[in-house]
Amino acid sequence: MNDKFHATARSQIIRRPDRVSYDKEAVYAILDASLLCHIAYVIDGEPYVTPTAFWRDGGTLYWHGSKNNRMIAQTTAGRACITVSHLDGLIVGRSGKGTSVQYRSVMAFGRPVAITEAASKQTAMESFINRLYPGRTGDIRPPLESELAEITVVKMDIEEASAKVKTNGVMEMRDEDYDIPTWAGVIPVCTMLETPIPDDQLKPGTAYPDSLALYQDGVRLDDALKSAQSKN
Amino acid sequence: MNDKFHATARSQIIRRPDRVSYDKEAVYAILDASLLCHIAYVIDGEPYVTPTAFWRDGGTLYWHGSKNNRMIAQTTAGRACITVSHLDGLIVGRSGKGTSVQYRSVMAFGRPVAITEAASKQTAMESFINRLYPGRTGDIRPPLESELAEITVVKMDIEEASAKVKTNGVMEMRDEDYDIPTWAGVIPVCTMLETPIPDDQLKPGTAYPDSLALYQDGVRLDDALKSAQSKN
Repeated sequence: MNDKFHATARSQIIRRPDRVSYDKEAVYAILDASLLCHIAYVIDGEPYVTPTAFWRDGGTLYWHGSKNNRMIAQTTAGRACITVSHLDGLIVGRSGKGTSVQYRSVMAFGRPVAITEAASKQTAMESFINRLYPGRTGDIRPPLESELAEITVVKMDIEEASAKVKTNGVMEMRDEDYDIPTWAGVIPVCTMLETPIPDDQLKPGTAYPDSLALYQDGVRLDDALKSAQSKN
Repeated sequence: MNDKFHATARSQIIRRPDRVSYDKEAVYAILDASLLCHIAYVIDGEPYVTPTAFWRDGGTLYWHGSKNNRMIAQTTAGRACITVSHLDGLIVGRSGKGTSVQYRSVMAFGRPVAITEAASKQTAMESFINRLYPGRTGDIRPPLESELAEITVVKMDIEEASAKVKTNGVMEMRDEDYDIPTWAGVIPVCTMLETPIPDDQLKPGTAYPDSLALYQDGVRLDDALKSAQSKN
């Protein structure tokens, strides 16, 4: 398997090539650390972007929605761009130029196609649940035919993708800027899980299951998501 | 002032109207809780979406970038869609249908215009820094002419916008689904600030300044951002 994505004018990043990677491993690590992506699509020549949950299986991204959903219909009518981003820190400089953010992001391009056959939709949706919560489909009921009929699953083979990562601390433009007498540094930002809240209708004594064991108070969401993905 | 955004076919949300609001107050609360937005734009008829830092002043959104940046150039060539989203929780159901996420999101539409005049760029960039870190421009040096020459600031009056919020817990489709013997509930997700890390080149004894007082270990990022916005 080729370990890099092919880059064309569409995906190539000209500015700051030091921050950019086309390595599949780098792209997948950023995708797998997120539950939400932002999907861009075009209607009547105008741009739209919708946040939605997604999952990855190999070089293919999946998402789903109501079969009547505008985004779902439009993303299967042409090319789409899927972006995932993580905010990792606030870089506080002694100048505006030195002030920035730490982030990880991916832009992925392809031509989404709809999965409309019920058995294939069921397989895909079960993959999604188990990707998030390994083994969870063993705990819950299977989808009803009527539920599967309401949704469309979309898959997109990644044709091109790039990752962009900024992890540096404060970088001032001029040596003398470091003499400006104010605090400078990085304020880390972290997306965490908090204490699970049982459903009001939960039967007394129902244990927190193995399928959710990765999701605990104080765990980083991106760590839980990456660990879950690696169990698939 | 009209307290609702006008909705056309572009911004009107047909499905799940119970989750939707066009109230300016609801839209602004979601925007002000975020530092990053996702900007969709069209090049040669194809969609792109780029994450970037933004800020709001009244009914206008601002962002900036290198004057050579593709996104900056393209977003001022036509209409843009700006989306902000927050993941607030994982809804873990007893069925796939009952499994979902809690979120807050906004889609805003308009026609971005470039601010290219140096003094106006300086004013805008100082507004951005003070919006994030109230009073911070009093601590740092002003931008250099050469720094302002490298960037374009973009402003977009919001012509249409909608907010979509999902805060419910587990909702199963059938009464009997509540008898499925597995844990169900909500795992809250929260984006937090962690302990500020001083720059390696910080002079010994430099105090953490008032302009950063809202940004402390254990504070929710969205609370810090909303508080900072309210000081403007």
